[in-house]
Amino acid sequence: MTELKIAADLIAAENDKRASALKSDYQALGESLSRRGIDIDAVTGKVAEFFVAVPSWGVGTGGTRFARFPGQGEPRGIFDKLDDCSVIHQLTRATPTVSLHIPWDKADVKELKAKGDALGLGFDAMNSNTFSDAPGQAHSYKYGSLSHTDAATRRQAIEHNLECIEIGRAIGSKALTVWIGDGSNFPGQSHFTRSFERYLVAMAEIYKALPDDWRLFSEHKMYEPAFYSTVVQDWGTNYLIANTLGPKAFCLVDLGHHAPNTNIEMIVARLIQFGKLGGFHFNDSKYGDDDLDAGAIEPYRLFLVFNELVDAEHRDVTGFHPAHMIDQSHNVTDPIESLISSANEIRRAYAQALLVDRNALDGYQQENDALMASETLKRAYRTDVEPILAAARQRAGGAIDPVATYRASGYRRKVARERPASSAGGGGIV
Amino acid sequence: MTELKIAADLIAAENDKRASALKSDYQALGESLSRRGIDIDAVTGKVAEFFVAVPSWGVGTGGTRFARFPGQGEPRGIFDKLDDCSVIHQLTRATPTVSLHIPWDKADVKELKAKGDALGLGFDAMNSNTFSDAPGQAHSYKYGSLSHTDAATRRQAIEHNLECIEIGRAIGSKALTVWIGDGSNFPGQSHFTRSFERYLVAMAEIYKALPDDWRLFSEHKMYEPAFYSTVVQDWGTNYLIANTLGPKAFCLVDLGHHAPNTNIEMIVARLIQFGKLGGFHFNDSKYGDDDLDAGAIEPYRLFLVFNELVDAEHRDVTGFHPAHMIDQSHNVTDPIESLISSANEIRRAYAQALLVDRNALDGYQQENDALMASETLKRAYRTDVEPILAAARQRAGGAIDPVATYRASGYRRKVARERPASSAGGGGIV
Amino acid sequence: MTELKIAADLIAAENDKRASALKSDYQALGESLSRRGIDIDAVTGKVAEFFVAVPSWGVGTGGTRFARFPGQGEPRGIFDKLDDCSVIHQLTRATPTVSLHIPWDKADVKELKAKGDALGLGFDAMNSNTFSDAPGQAHSYKYGSLSHTDAATRRQAIEHNLECIEIGRAIGSKALTVWIGDGSNFPGQSHFTRSFERYLVAMAEIYKALPDDWRLFSEHKMYEPAFYSTVVQDWGTNYLIANTLGPKAFCLVDLGHHAPNTNIEMIVARLIQFGKLGGFHFNDSKYGDDDLDAGAIEPYRLFLVFNELVDAEHRDVTGFHPAHMIDQSHNVTDPIESLISSANEIRRAYAQALLVDRNALDGYQQENDALMASETLKRAYRTDVEPILAAARQRAGGAIDPVATYRASGYRRKVARERPASSAGGGGIV
Amino acid sequence: MTELKIAADLIAAENDKRASALKSDYQALGESLSRRGIDIDAVTGKVAEFFVAVPSWGVGTGGTRFARFPGQGEPRGIFDKLDDCSVIHQLTRATPTVSLHIPWDKADVKELKAKGDALGLGFDAMNSNTFSDAPGQAHSYKYGSLSHTDAATRRQAIEHNLECIEIGRAIGSKALTVWIGDGSNFPGQSHFTRSFERYLVAMAEIYKALPDDWRLFSEHKMYEPAFYSTVVQDWGTNYLIANTLGPKAFCLVDLGHHAPNTNIEMIVARLIQFGKLGGFHFNDSKYGDDDLDAGAIEPYRLFLVFNELVDAEHRDVTGFHPAHMIDQSHNVTDPIESLISSANEIRRAYAQALLVDRNALDGYQQENDALMASETLKRAYRTDVEPILAAARQRAGGAIDPVATYRASGYRRKVARERPASSAGGGGIV
Repeated sequence: MTELKIAADLIAAENDKRASALKSDYQALGESLSRRGIDIDAVTGKVAEFFVAVPSWGVGTGGTRFARFPGQGEPRGIFDKLDDCSVIHQLTRATPTVSLHIPWDKADVKELKAKGDALGLGFDAMNSNTFSDAPGQAHSYKYGSLSHTDAATRRQAIEHNLECIEIGRAIGSKALTVWIGDGSNFPGQSHFTRSFERYLVAMAEIYKALPDDWRLFSEHKMYEPAFYSTVVQDWGTNYLIANTLGPKAFCLVDLGHHAPNTNIEMIVARLIQFGKLGGFHFNDSKYGDDDLDAGAIEPYRLFLVFNELVDAEHRDVTGFHPAHMIDQSHNVTDPIESLISSANEIRRAYAQALLVDRNALDGYQQENDALMASETLKRAYRTDVEPILAAARQRAGGAIDPVATYRASGYRRKVARERPASSAGGGGIV
Repeated sequence: MTELKIAADLIAAENDKRASALKSDYQALGESLSRRGIDIDAVTGKVAEFFVAVPSWGVGTGGTRFARFPGQGEPRGIFDKLDDCSVIHQLTRATPTVSLHIPWDKADVKELKAKGDALGLGFDAMNSNTFSDAPGQAHSYKYGSLSHTDAATRRQAIEHNLECIEIGRAIGSKALTVWIGDGSNFPGQSHFTRSFERYLVAMAEIYKALPDDWRLFSEHKMYEPAFYSTVVQDWGTNYLIANTLGPKAFCLVDLGHHAPNTNIEMIVARLIQFGKLGGFHFNDSKYGDDDLDAGAIEPYRLFLVFNELVDAEHRDVTGFHPAHMIDQSHNVTDPIESLISSANEIRRAYAQALLVDRNALDGYQQENDALMASETLKRAYRTDVEPILAAARQRAGGAIDPVATYRASGYRRKVARERPASSAGGGGIV
Repeated sequence: MTELKIAADLIAAENDKRASALKSDYQALGESLSRRGIDIDAVTGKVAEFFVAVPSWGVGTGGTRFARFPGQGEPRGIFDKLDDCSVIHQLTRATPTVSLHIPWDKADVKELKAKGDALGLGFDAMNSNTFSDAPGQAHSYKYGSLSHTDAATRRQAIEHNLECIEIGRAIGSKALTVWIGDGSNFPGQSHFTRSFERYLVAMAEIYKALPDDWRLFSEHKMYEPAFYSTVVQDWGTNYLIANTLGPKAFCLVDLGHHAPNTNIEMIVARLIQFGKLGGFHFNDSKYGDDDLDAGAIEPYRLFLVFNELVDAEHRDVTGFHPAHMIDQSHNVTDPIESLISSANEIRRAYAQALLVDRNALDGYQQENDALMASETLKRAYRTDVEPILAAARQRAGGAIDPVATYRASGYRRKVARERPASSAGGGGIV
Repeated sequence: MTELKIAADLIAAENDKRASALKSDYQALGESLSRRGIDIDAVTGKVAEFFVAVPSWGVGTGGTRFARFPGQGEPRGIFDKLDDCSVIHQLTRATPTVSLHIPWDKADVKELKAKGDALGLGFDAMNSNTFSDAPGQAHSYKYGSLSHTDAATRRQAIEHNLECIEIGRAIGSKALTVWIGDGSNFPGQSHFTRSFERYLVAMAEIYKALPDDWRLFSEHKMYEPAFYSTVVQDWGTNYLIANTLGPKAFCLVDLGHHAPNTNIEMIVARLIQFGKLGGFHFNDSKYGDDDLDAGAIEPYRLFLVFNELVDAEHRDVTGFHPAHMIDQSHNVTDPIESLISSANEIRRAYAQALLVDRNALDGYQQENDALMASETLKRAYRTDVEPILAAARQRAGGAIDPVATYRASGYRRKVARERPASSAGGGGIV
């Protein structure tokens, strides 16, 4: 029996307050959609089956190089983090899996598995960490990891990834995500080609150790922590990696890892076309890798990404099954609330994309009717699908209004009493 | 009696097809809004009184330095343009004024005025043109106009602006918009300070000639046509201009004239706070001054701009009455359709901004409840206000679905028969 | 015997004025370099053998969508253009070939060949044009060319490219450059995947027609003329094209076609590593595809690109022989002067890159000595190699100071008398 | 007598190795410059009198939100930091002052003063810190400081700034630099206008406490640590601050705090023109506020900034005396080496700007001779002024090659033995 962090009674009571309004809105939307030839229940059904993984590191308060301002009741370790993740899933019914970060989340694998089982949570892609030094580590990653000029450092980074696979195997994960901070801060510091050759050799070794039913996700990023060049800087390099490594290697797209003005949805389309879209790290951003809540800044962009995903489903693209994961930094909000909200926003974009009249769109595209093609997308996008999202949650036992219900539950106050305050960060790093 | 380019019967017939669905949607939305304490009819009433000027140059097909691909039935001159503008207003009831560009639209002022009266159109801000050379012009603007190193060229540019004021006076305009292309393509080409000093002196002369009830709008732009520096490059410089010139001088914000990633809504707020927001050139863009249809790329950004405007209304800011104008380039659509759609999108953003629960927002801001503050804006934004927009049009005699009605009218086919094909542009300018 | 547009006597007289100072500077630089273990004459020799093609369209005055301000004595057609190109080469001895643009430069191939021979000029890569409509063309490229939804339009675009190959064959070209403007201005307007599939099928047909000793260059560009999406938007897509087509297909890098902040030298390195660097369109830019003179805005970036090229030479990379071409728009300068200056700047970057102490750099890179690695590049970069460039020109019969010599020759005044003034452009396209 | 951290003998010995080559290079450069009408010794004299402050925080190893990789022998506190700063000045003779950061550098003011005196160092602008929480602080800056919604928090931030002034007074500083991290991560989180009003009121109070001979520098920044909006986001807002506060308030320009593609040298010119340029935080960047070593990424941009400064000197602008300070983060280099190199690069840009032929430039600007104007700047820029910089150092008792001399001194190894290793940072903040 699943251990529940929020009392089912509370959820029911909160839902009762909102059930009648939801019913009315849902019915009105259903009628309006039926005039457009859309069966609202079919959409709600698809939304209810759409899931996104939450990152274990996302339930702690994030920060910048200038400071970290801790929140109340921050998780003390992976078991607290899993508790917090279970709250998100219980209320949204959208996040049944958690993505771990090693070594941050290192623990006895049997206990991890048992805790996950108890909370009704599975484990999504494993994340290795070779962008910071763990205490006691023999070789520093200051000048790189998988692409380091020193063979022993590369070896250490490879071994760490192999260990991540082993942990993942034991807890039921099926994928490894590799993001490295390797790069340079000065022209000349690194040899672009030799660095990338070393990276490819190292990754080939990790790839070889991958179980047959696993996928390897490599993640590109334009800059940060390296400020002149990054080894895996964009989707072009990322594609070369996945293509060089083999059929189990795929590209991961983090929405915040691109140059200004980049058309990200087009990158998604290209990776789908060439069979190498592994999945997403969802978040939103205005300037750089701001790691803000999904949909908070440019919701239409998120919709356009989902428009590509639904289009690929619609065209029944072979082997298309991208992984959906959130990767955010919650600096000024309660992380649980941000993750609840983000999971909703991601489902919102999915629901809106499901409403696109694809036959009409095909026709407009074929006729180069740019205005009506645009309007076809906008029409789906501007539909207020909140009743669909709320109904999907409600029907699955979640909350009609998950943030309000979370606040009503007093969960944060409760854990704040149990978990000691963590220390503020920052200072000196300017 | 107003001359109508689209038969009233046709509009009525088209509206009849959609009236029942609209009624149903409007009622459902009304009920939903009333649960949020909002009176839908009050909102519809405000939307019906919100207007935006269309640019005379916008009804012709635009292009790029690479090519211009003409459309069918392009206007042959200002009188054709006014006909086209009247169609937009007739269907949307949102665009009762037209902004002229001199010398492109130069004509007998009495005829202009009479044509406007006949069509039920007024004249918005006058636009001078010193960024291209008119045939027979004595001095070229190749190296600048109001900031040119040569006094005679500056004089010519000043006189041109004075003439624009004269024309505007005669036809009922109340504002002059000055956008110059002055700048440089090479470091060293221009002396930043001397250029700006010359510009300020020239503008002071134009300002002096401004009628008492007019406003002078200066427009900033980061780059293009100058590719290294631009004399009026950003809102900082624009503010210095308005502040130097005097109380009738204001800053015009074109949404596409900023650096990548710029927070435009914040610039709007600053200009409101310091009493210098003149108004807008609405459009949308992804890369540079792309001049795409308003709301086509980042609709949430447009909403956030209107959120500032409605907030200023709400706070009853003294002297706050910004001018709303569209400035777009329609390269691949029927310009009339793009302007219809853009006027709707602008009203949409306004309507959404009216739905923001400002008391709740104030509270969240005061409490630093970032998540709920954001959610308060998103809730208003994601409301599908199309029924409000459609009802506002319908009640004012416009079309429930103005693009569909326009297509049904056959207007473009008709004018295509009357107006000879214009020639393709481009070639040689790469 | 080569037909000379600038009198050899004049060049000699101008050189005489500067020979003594050059000798002194060259000797001092030689001594300084010899202390760094570098033989100045060896560098001068390599520089003298470095060539870059000029674009035929570059000798006319360019413009923007707002206006084109013609210069004096603009070339009336390809034969005038070749005359102008010969002046550039005569003075710089750096630009022995011209790159043609079809249909702009269409002419009798025998006459073209004869004119080139007479002037001592060869023909570099051919450029097709499917981004604007030629008079009388059956199908418009308004909505695309090689990726158009309409098969007949694609066919026309393919045939045009085949014709370019035929013309090129007849005049001694060995490459075809394909840049298309295809893309979209609105989300939804184009289906990303289908567009790219159509493009690849069309390009495969062109590729099939390529002579065995030719190369096919595809060129990517982030945006403009399309403002929401571009079919060949970045090097990732460009690599996929070259890889799909076959061993004669390569990627062309135009320095101005990237997202803001992009590390272009790294893209160059990646394309070299994967055997797909075709060559360059050199220019400089600050904002978008500004097409300014090479080295005018960010000269260090140009150096860093050449650092990759010289490094590849140094490592003796198999099949490495990129094409060097200029692609610029000269809006405010005499195009001949800008091309002279640009050819010099490109050679300057090459000369500076030849001075990098690669053994030292290797050591610093291996040791992660970021500061000294950076300093090693900077030391080469800050060396004033003008004496080397001047000596290379002088020894080959060119001018020590080519711009001053050009001005002294009165060439522009002379052709201004012969060639009628061209008309100003712009107006209406805002 | 000044306490020297590097033995004078060592410097002399190292200089001896390089004196002959320097003499030769200096003489050759002198001859070449004299042909351009420039007296090299006059330039060397001006360079020798150009100074830049080093930031106390810059001698520690910086980091990112992902990790901090400590270096060896990191300073344990302000007194160690001052030792390190004295090394930089001893070798470069370019950095006689240090800029402190409070509370990081808080110490007994008499000891501070004595230590500075002993090392021959003065104190530049004071820096307050309200972007991170100090241990034991009553109110958190998580949601802002001078613009916080809570009056007590604003009060605390004001008091902190007043304390900085007091400390500064005691140690001989003459300026206060205020940079705040205040802003928001979500649309709606902050009210733009009210936040700025609160900021202005708070700053007015700080301004009031400023001694008569002090200056107040406010610093703008586009983003980070706030990722949606920043209270002092650009120079426009910064100008409004300085203008509102009064004649002792000026704008500080950090080169890394702007939007992509921004023409920073133009902002410098505007602030000079309107009497509000306070000074600089020098550094370099490619993507965001990368805080890389000055001149490492875009050295021509640094030159163009200095071109404005020297032009203002040349025009004898009233009240023009900007403060020169470095603000960098040294993540992968020895901070002392980076600061030595940066001080040199800043002097390099100054020296190059002194070489610009301003009469010739004026003429080209007046005649709109864009090519020769650009060439005039480029000619000065490409002059290798290293002999001038080295001679200026040598003549003042510094090192001809300061980095090599520093390495030869073994200073870092020595302090590494005395100072315990600091801990790695990062982890958890992703």
